[in-house]
Amino acid sequence: MDLNEDIQLDVHEIGERVLGRWADIRRHTRSVIAQKQLFKVEGENYHDHRERVLKNLKTLVADGATQYGFPAELGGERNPGGSLSSFEELVFADPSLQIKFGVQWGLFGSAILYLGTDYHHKTFLPGAVNLETPGAFAMTETGHGSDVASIGTTATFDEATGEFVINTPDRHSYKDYLGNAAKHGEAAVVFAQLYTQGENHGVHAFFVPIRKKGKNLPGIHSEDDGLKGGLNGIDNGRLAFDHVRIPRINLLNRYADVSEDGTYTSSIESPGRRFFTQLGALVQGRVSLTGAVVNAQKLALDIAVRYGEQRRQFPKPDGTEQVLMDYGRHQRRLLPRIASTYAQIFAHQELLNSFHSVFSGEDESEEARQDLETVAAAAKALSTWYALDTIQESREACGGQGFMAEHRLVSLRADLDVYVTFEGDNNVLLQLVAKRLLGDYAKAFKSPDFGTLAQYVAGQAADRAINRGGLRGLAQNIIDFGSTGRSIGFVKEEEHQHQLLTDRVHTMVANLANKLKHSGPKDKDKEAELFNRHQNDLILAARAHGELILWEAFTSALKTIHDADSKKILTWLRDLYGFTLLEENMAWYLVNGRISSARAEAITDYIDGRLLPRLRPHALSLVDAFLLSPELVRTNLASDEATRRATIANLVRS
Amino acid sequence: MDLNEDIQLDVHEIGERVLGRWADIRRHTRSVIAQKQLFKVEGENYHDHRERVLKNLKTLVADGATQYGFPAELGGERNPGGSLSSFEELVFADPSLQIKFGVQWGLFGSAILYLGTDYHHKTFLPGAVNLETPGAFAMTETGHGSDVASIGTTATFDEATGEFVINTPDRHSYKDYLGNAAKHGEAAVVFAQLYTQGENHGVHAFFVPIRKKGKNLPGIHSEDDGLKGGLNGIDNGRLAFDHVRIPRINLLNRYADVSEDGTYTSSIESPGRRFFTQLGALVQGRVSLTGAVVNAQKLALDIAVRYGEQRRQFPKPDGTEQVLMDYGRHQRRLLPRIASTYAQIFAHQELLNSFHSVFSGEDESEEARQDLETVAAAAKALSTWYALDTIQESREACGGQGFMAEHRLVSLRADLDVYVTFEGDNNVLLQLVAKRLLGDYAKAFKSPDFGTLAQYVAGQAADRAINRGGLRGLAQNIIDFGSTGRSIGFVKEEEHQHQLLTDRVHTMVANLANKLKHSGPKDKDKEAELFNRHQNDLILAARAHGELILWEAFTSALKTIHDADSKKILTWLRDLYGFTLLEENMAWYLVNGRISSARAEAITDYIDGRLLPRLRPHALSLVDAFLLSPELVRTNLASDEATRRATIANLVRS
Repeated sequence: MDLNEDIQLDVHEIGERVLGRWADIRRHTRSVIAQKQLFKVEGENYHDHRERVLKNLKTLVADGATQYGFPAELGGERNPGGSLSSFEELVFADPSLQIKFGVQWGLFGSAILYLGTDYHHKTFLPGAVNLETPGAFAMTETGHGSDVASIGTTATFDEATGEFVINTPDRHSYKDYLGNAAKHGEAAVVFAQLYTQGENHGVHAFFVPIRKKGKNLPGIHSEDDGLKGGLNGIDNGRLAFDHVRIPRINLLNRYADVSEDGTYTSSIESPGRRFFTQLGALVQGRVSLTGAVVNAQKLALDIAVRYGEQRRQFPKPDGTEQVLMDYGRHQRRLLPRIASTYAQIFAHQELLNSFHSVFSGEDESEEARQDLETVAAAAKALSTWYALDTIQESREACGGQGFMAEHRLVSLRADLDVYVTFEGDNNVLLQLVAKRLLGDYAKAFKSPDFGTLAQYVAGQAADRAINRGGLRGLAQNIIDFGSTGRSIGFVKEEEHQHQLLTDRVHTMVANLANKLKHSGPKDKDKEAELFNRHQNDLILAARAHGELILWEAFTSALKTIHDADSKKILTWLRDLYGFTLLEENMAWYLVNGRISSARAEAITDYIDGRLLPRLRPHALSLVDAFLLSPELVRTNLASDEATRRATIANLVRS
Repeated sequence: MDLNEDIQLDVHEIGERVLGRWADIRRHTRSVIAQKQLFKVEGENYHDHRERVLKNLKTLVADGATQYGFPAELGGERNPGGSLSSFEELVFADPSLQIKFGVQWGLFGSAILYLGTDYHHKTFLPGAVNLETPGAFAMTETGHGSDVASIGTTATFDEATGEFVINTPDRHSYKDYLGNAAKHGEAAVVFAQLYTQGENHGVHAFFVPIRKKGKNLPGIHSEDDGLKGGLNGIDNGRLAFDHVRIPRINLLNRYADVSEDGTYTSSIESPGRRFFTQLGALVQGRVSLTGAVVNAQKLALDIAVRYGEQRRQFPKPDGTEQVLMDYGRHQRRLLPRIASTYAQIFAHQELLNSFHSVFSGEDESEEARQDLETVAAAAKALSTWYALDTIQESREACGGQGFMAEHRLVSLRADLDVYVTFEGDNNVLLQLVAKRLLGDYAKAFKSPDFGTLAQYVAGQAADRAINRGGLRGLAQNIIDFGSTGRSIGFVKEEEHQHQLLTDRVHTMVANLANKLKHSGPKDKDKEAELFNRHQNDLILAARAHGELILWEAFTSALKTIHDADSKKILTWLRDLYGFTLLEENMAWYLVNGRISSARAEAITDYIDGRLLPRLRPHALSLVDAFLLSPELVRTNLASDEATRRATIANLVRS
C-alpha cells in the first residue's frame, strides 16, 4: 500500500493558515497569557479564583488585549474581528478568564457600544472599557432561559419624574446566571419590557447601576449562583429589581427612544425586527464562543496525540511494541476529530470574516446580517458539541493519566460544558437555523426560478418512488459490485462529496416542508402537533446544514494552500471529514437511494484501509500546526515535550 | 391517536422489580446513607474530602453496610451478590465513598479473601474487614495500564532468608492511580512477577505492609496523584518498592505457592489460565461498577424528568404554555435514555445473579465463569458509556440550572468520568468480548453441528451477493411500499426484533472471522496489520453483542411483570430500546439487506409518531419507580419536589 510516508506537512505554512487573518493580534494575546499568574490553578477554591480572575482581567487591560473592538478614543481600533480573535485565545490560559472577558467587553461593553448612543458612549463606555465599572449583562431570567421575548422584568416610564422604573414581578423573572452579578458588577445592562403610556413596546436595554464598593444599591437584590460545574472564576448570580428608578436617558436608545412626555418612537417599525436587532449583540457571543471551543479542541488533541505517539500498550505478536497511535481503533478515535477540528478552524475563519464585515459596517446588507446569524447559530451549536466530544475522547484516549487534573483535559471539559447551553441553547439555535432553511425553501417556491428550484427537486415526491424502491441504487450496485476501487472512485471526487452533502440538506428540508404543511385546513393545534412530531428532524436537518458549511469551508481553504504535500495531506483530512459525515448518515443515503450498499461498505473500508493509514504518519505535524507553545499547553504528559516544544516555540516566535 | 393515557404504571410493583433480589440489603444501605454527614459536599477541598470519606467508611462499618461478602466469623454472610448490592447504592451518597469502599473491600479485602488461604484470612482479613488496616490494590502501573501481564514490578524469592524481595525496576513500573496509596493505606496487595530459582512464573499477588501511623515503611516510596477530574475523596497515589522484603508466607497462595527451598508449584498448569484466575477478582469490580452507574443514571433521569415536567419554555401558538417534556425533541432526548436505563437495570440483575452463583460456589463450571467474565466486560463498557451520555444529556436538558453544582449533575458526571477507564478500559474490555465471540465462532466451525452453524449462515459469502444487490430488500420494498402500518408490523413483533439484533451480531462476527483469516500463508506482521485494520469493527461487534444482551434481559424481565398496564408500558419502553438500536445501526441493516428502505423510515416514524407520544405520559412514573427518596436525590430543581417526595417516601418505607 502506498502510504505516501515520504511526504510532509509544511508546519510553518499550515500553522500560519490556522492562525488566520488576525494572526498578529492572536500572537500578542498569546504572549500576554504566557504570564504564569494568568493560568488556571486546578483545585483553587472558587472565592479565590474569582478574585484572581478579576485581577487578571486588569492585567489584560494593562497589556492591551481587551480594547480592539472599541473606538480609538478609548484606545481601541473598532476592529470587531481582531477583538474576537484576542478573546478566543484566552481559553488556553483559563476559560473563566475568557468568559469573564466576554461578560465585561463582549456583552456589557458591547451592548453599550451597539445599543447605546453618544451620551452612553461618553458616560458609560469608558468605565466599561477600562474595567473601572465591572458590569453584568442582565438578559436571561430564571424562568425564561431561551425565550427572551417573554421575560418578565419591566421598565415602566413615569412621566411625572422622567424616570424608568425597573421591576422584577416574580421569582421566575429574576435575572439569572449573570457573570459579575454575584459580586463584582457595579452596573448592568438590563433587558426589560418597556412600558410607556400604558403600552408594552417589547424588550429594550437599560443601563442600571447596581452596586457601589461591594454594596448593593437600594432596590437591588442579588444572589450568588454558587459553585458550578466549571468556570468557577466567574461570580455568576441573580439580580432582582424592586422598583428601581433610573433616568430616562439610561435607555440604550440607538433603535428606539421615549421622549420626555412618554412618546415611544423607533427607527425600526416591526416589533419583531426591533427585538431581533437589539439581540444582535448575541451573535458576537456565538461567533467568539465558536472560536474559543475550536482552540480548546486544538489543545485537547495536542495533548492526546502526543501521548498517543509516546505511550505503548501491548507488545506486538513479533515482540516489538507499538505506540497507541499505531492502533486502528486509536486512529479512529483521534484522526476524524483532527479532521473535524480543521473543518471548524476554516469555517470559523469565514464566520469571523462575515462578522467583521457586518459589525465594522463594511457590509450593511440585511442579507449579510441574516446569513451571519444563521451561520453563527449553526457553527456555535456544532462546534460546542464537537468540543465536548473531542475533549472527552482525548481524555479517554489518555486513560488514567487523562483523568489527572494536572493534564488539563478534565478541567477543560468541565469549564466548556456550559458552552453548549449559554448564548443560546444548542437545540434552540438549531431550530433557528431550520426555520431559516424552511423560509428559504418557501421563498424559492413562491417565486419559482428554475436554478433555485432544481436544487430541491431530488428527493421530492415525484421521484420518491424510484429512490424508495432502491432501483436507482440497484443499478449502482450492479456496476460497483466486487470492486471497492470503482465504488469509491465516485465519492472520492470533491464535487460528488459536495453533491451528496448538499443533496441531503436540500432533500431533508424539502421533505420537512412537505410534512409540515400537509395539515389540511388551518388548525393551530394540529400544526403544533405536527411541528412537535418533526422537531427532531428539524434539528437534524439544521445539523446537516452546519456540517455542509464546515465541509465547504475546509474545501475552500484547500485552494489557498501553496505547498503541494500539505495540500495533499489536508485533502485526505478533508476527505476523512466528508467520509465520516457520509458514514454517520449512511442510513439516510441508503434509504434515499443516494448511495448504494456497495458504496456504503466501500466508504467504511476506505476510511479504515486508506485514509487512516495515510494520515497516521502526519498526526503529529497536524497538531504541531496548531502552534501551541509550552505556556499554552502546560502538561508534560508526553515526555518528549521539551524537545518538541523548542521547535514549536521557534515557529511561534517567527 | 390512541395514547392509552388512561393506563398507569404500577410504581409499587415496578419499583420492587427495579430494586431486585437483594432489595432488603439495598434498603438498609439506603437508610444508612440517608445520614447527612455521608453526603458529598460540593466544592469541598480534596484534603478535607479525603479525611471525611475515610471517616464515613467507618460509619458504614459501624452501621453494617460493608460486611456482606465476608465470612460469618468476621460478621459477614459470604453473600457476594448482597455485598455488591450494598456497594452499588453508595453512589447516591458520594461516588468517592463508593469507590473507596471498592478499594478497601472490593479489591484489597477481596484479594486477600479470594487469592489468600487460611493464614491470610486469619492474619490479614480481620483488619481489612474492620478497616483497621486500610489497604491498596497495587496492580496497575504507570507504563502498563491495561497490560497487566507485562508489569515490571518483581517479587524475587531469596532462599537464603526465606523472603520475597519486592522491587520496582523503573519509573514506568510505579504502581499508579491506587486508592489509599497516597495517604491512608497501611498495607497493599501487590501484583508482581514472581521469580524463584531464576525463573519467572508470571504475575502473583503479595501482601505488603507499606505504612504505619502515616509514615512510609523502609523501602516504600509513595507519591500523591493530587487533584483529579472527580472522585477527589480518594487519596489516589503511586507506590514504588526499593527491595522491600516480606516473608514467604505473604504470597497469597491459593493458586500457587513457593516452598522454603524456592520450588514453585501451582494447582493451575497453564500460566495463561493461572494469570486470568488471579485476575478473577477484577470481575467483581466490573459487575459492581455496572450496578453503580445504573444507579447514577436513575438519579440523573429522576432530576431531568422532574425538571422537564415543570419547566416551561416558549408559549404555544394558542397562548398556553407547555412543559419541556411535551416537546418532541425533549422526549427524544430523555425517553430513549429511560429505556436504555431499564434495559441496563434488568441486564445488571442477571449479571449480578451470575456473579453470585460463581462467587458463592453455587456454579463452579468453567463455562459459567467465562460467561460471567464476557458479560461483565460487555456490560461494564456499555453501561459506563451510557451513564456519561445519560448524565450529560440530563444536564443539558436542565439548561443553565443543570450546570449548578447544587443540582448534582455536573458533579456526578465528573466523578463517573473515570469509570469508563478503570477496572479495564472500555475499548480493551470490548476487545476481550470480541475475542470470545470469535472464539465461539471458530469452535462452532470446528465441530460443525447444524444448530449452531445455522446461526452464522446468514450474511456469509454464499448469500452475500443477494444481500449486497439488495434483491431481498427490494422484494420487501415492493410489499411494504406505501404502508407504514404494514412496514412496522413486522418489526414490532418481539421475535423479529430479536432476530434482527441477533443476526447483526452473528453476521458481524462471521464477516470479521472471514476477513481476519484471509491473510494467506502464516505471516505475523500481515496478521497484525489485518487485525489492526479491523480493530474498530471488532469493537463495534462486541458492542452490538452487549446491546443484544441488554435487549434480551429487558425482554425476559417483561415476562415477570404481573400488572397488565405496567407490562404494556414497559413493552413500549423495550420496543423503544430495540427500535433505537435498529435506528442507530440502520446503515448496517440496509447494506446487509436485512431491513428495507421503507421499513427503515417506518421505524423512525414509529418512534417519533407512536412510541414517544405513548410513553410521554408515563415518563414521571417510570422514574418514580426508581424509588429515590429525597435524601438520595437532594435537589429541589423541580419545585413540586416536596409533595412528590412524600409519596415516594411512603413507597420506600413499605
